[in-house]
Amino acid sequence: MNTNYLKACSDLLKNINTKKPLVLHLTNFVTINDCANMTLAIGASPIMSFEVSEAEELLSMSSALVLNIGTSTKESINNMLLVGKIANKLNVPIVLDPVGAGATTFRTNSIQKLLDELYISVIKGNLGEIKAISGLETKMKGVDSIDNDNNKETIAKNLANKYKNVIVISGKEDVVSDGRNTMIIKNGHPMLSNVTGTGCMTASLIGAFCGVTDDYLLAATSGILSMSLAGEYAFKSLKENDGIGTFKVKIFDGISNMNENILRGGNIELYK
Amino acid sequence: MNTNYLKACSDLLKNINTKKPLVLHLTNFVTINDCANMTLAIGASPIMSFEVSEAEELLSMSSALVLNIGTSTKESINNMLLVGKIANKLNVPIVLDPVGAGATTFRTNSIQKLLDELYISVIKGNLGEIKAISGLETKMKGVDSIDNDNNKETIAKNLANKYKNVIVISGKEDVVSDGRNTMIIKNGHPMLSNVTGTGCMTASLIGAFCGVTDDYLLAATSGILSMSLAGEYAFKSLKENDGIGTFKVKIFDGISNMNENILRGGNIELYK
Amino acid sequence: MNTNYLKACSDLLKNINTKKPLVLHLTNFVTINDCANMTLAIGASPIMSFEVSEAEELLSMSSALVLNIGTSTKESINNMLLVGKIANKLNVPIVLDPVGAGATTFRTNSIQKLLDELYISVIKGNLGEIKAISGLETKMKGVDSIDNDNNKETIAKNLANKYKNVIVISGKEDVVSDGRNTMIIKNGHPMLSNVTGTGCMTASLIGAFCGVTDDYLLAATSGILSMSLAGEYAFKSLKENDGIGTFKVKIFDGISNMNENILRGGNIELYK
Repeated sequence: MNTNYLKACSDLLKNINTKKPLVLHLTNFVTINDCANMTLAIGASPIMSFEVSEAEELLSMSSALVLNIGTSTKESINNMLLVGKIANKLNVPIVLDPVGAGATTFRTNSIQKLLDELYISVIKGNLGEIKAISGLETKMKGVDSIDNDNNKETIAKNLANKYKNVIVISGKEDVVSDGRNTMIIKNGHPMLSNVTGTGCMTASLIGAFCGVTDDYLLAATSGILSMSLAGEYAFKSLKENDGIGTFKVKIFDGISNMNENILRGGNIELYK
Repeated sequence: MNTNYLKACSDLLKNINTKKPLVLHLTNFVTINDCANMTLAIGASPIMSFEVSEAEELLSMSSALVLNIGTSTKESINNMLLVGKIANKLNVPIVLDPVGAGATTFRTNSIQKLLDELYISVIKGNLGEIKAISGLETKMKGVDSIDNDNNKETIAKNLANKYKNVIVISGKEDVVSDGRNTMIIKNGHPMLSNVTGTGCMTASLIGAFCGVTDDYLLAATSGILSMSLAGEYAFKSLKENDGIGTFKVKIFDGISNMNENILRGGNIELYK
Repeated sequence: MNTNYLKACSDLLKNINTKKPLVLHLTNFVTINDCANMTLAIGASPIMSFEVSEAEELLSMSSALVLNIGTSTKESINNMLLVGKIANKLNVPIVLDPVGAGATTFRTNSIQKLLDELYISVIKGNLGEIKAISGLETKMKGVDSIDNDNNKETIAKNLANKYKNVIVISGKEDVVSDGRNTMIIKNGHPMLSNVTGTGCMTASLIGAFCGVTDDYLLAATSGILSMSLAGEYAFKSLKENDGIGTFKVKIFDGISNMNENILRGGNIELYK
């Protein structure tokens, strides 16, 4: 399974480089630049917009839509609802990053509204965020989960079954489930959580992969695996006295140099 | 011509370092940080503002205004019209980056409104954007031009004649025209298009150069030449395994180390 | 004094790493990413928000609030007033970065309104900004002070006495005063002013330190000392041909590698 699945991931990467899918982002102000550069680094094409009146034209040439509520206001959530409905109408897959769900009532409710009114193909969050969306009790510190759970695979699977979509839980080991199959990604490096927005950037990568396949389990696995492997590369490339600044630069190097061979070296497992 | 013109470019750089012109930006949320740092790196001083009521005071001490519609909304276009009129009144030159003109009706119309109501000294776009402004048919993929044209010099020249200003078309070879003289800049590196916002940053550099001369053909040539040479430097400085993250860092290094000698090594040509 | 005070600074750093205080930011669009990464680099946890309705929940888990008016509009100033009042009610210390006070009437008035309606624990500005807040005549070029004054210590002291808080004046030598004691920080490097937002990032660092002590003189000194030492490190680590891009990366490395020994090597003095 592992080898074949990694082969499939690496084939997707090839498709990104051929098709260069356009990925529309309605995203936060903190990591918007990093998300654009990450989308470019994997070989896709980013477009960021805040003007709803151009959404239909942009979506008609886009292969995926990434929604990220990191710095959302009531107004921007409304915009996401409007743009998301167009995406649903045009069959453009939506990747949702529910930043800080569970941390505030506003964020939890906003996510609920998005999930009630839109069909979301992939939700990617940390454990706290996904538990909040699942209606489970959770502990958030700002936008960071301080939750622990040995039960991540089941949580992902159940939520995927509820929404008939793909759920990603990022963490030390990442979990991706479409409700039937659940993948565990064992790559990555803890230092990734010391750079703001590596989660947001992962959602952009997933968006890029969703732009070249209908298999969103595979797309989400490929996206999170790419970031995890780039994190490992970035850590390995650090020299004495290097810190978080250099590490961040190297993540981008790692993604722009990502290739089929590197992806095939991933360590993923089918959860049983 | 070449040698003298490069000498003139390098003299402008000296003037930036002496005068440290203030460049007011109304720009997008994706590359606003990079534009500020690029303005500093060339030796000028950036100021970013979204509050129209402070525009007159800021413009009264500014040497150039950069307008960039990368993430514009109807509201921000209105702000640009208000601030642009003050700039025109105070004779502060305006550099316009028409990001995504031709990609959506909103962007095309917004640019048209800005051009109808303001005098713009320099418009810097990719081929697709400039063709859209010229009323020519074009192909855009998001904010990227996927157009090809052997006719760039004529397109630039015609538009410059229409608006009595300077037109820059960025690309493999860059074209700058004031309607009478048309320069071709043969420096640069394709990797520049793999970093988001190198176009925006180039507009900031052009703004800095426009802040120290009335010769906007020269200013625009100097700005785009600086970015092109920095791109060449950045590529040359890459080591094994370096990618787009390191390349971006090195662009900033290249601009902050730009000097008269490096500028004089540029490869520019008068189009005949 | 020096040695003991540096010891106290370094103890605070330890406390940040233990407590990981959450620092809520209402900040500008230019340096928002850098501020988030800087907060992480020192060991604290950043949260950025623009939605007033979630402020109370966020502040109830936050240890400090950073307000930065770098790209403020009338609306965002109103939001800062609302959120600031909640912070005051919940005894969350506020750090204010009055970017561009003195440069425009809007900015000067906005700061005055914030100071009239809120209790601010620490104000950190350059000399021009602090003079403007003090009602002294000043010279600003955009958001940069082009003022000189041999009288910085007295200016900081007087303003601190007026507002019963801590005043930081950044510059070649930094001054921090609580009205009784005034510290001079002699570390730092001029290249720090060639990167946009090192002032904003310093405010974030001060916010992180304020999150683990009630001694805001010590917290502000620790914050500005950390940035100054990181600037020295960044400069020392530059190799031939490195410029402002690499320097910025190394500032982040310097902060993420900051430790008690490095902090104890600081050069600070009690002003008499």
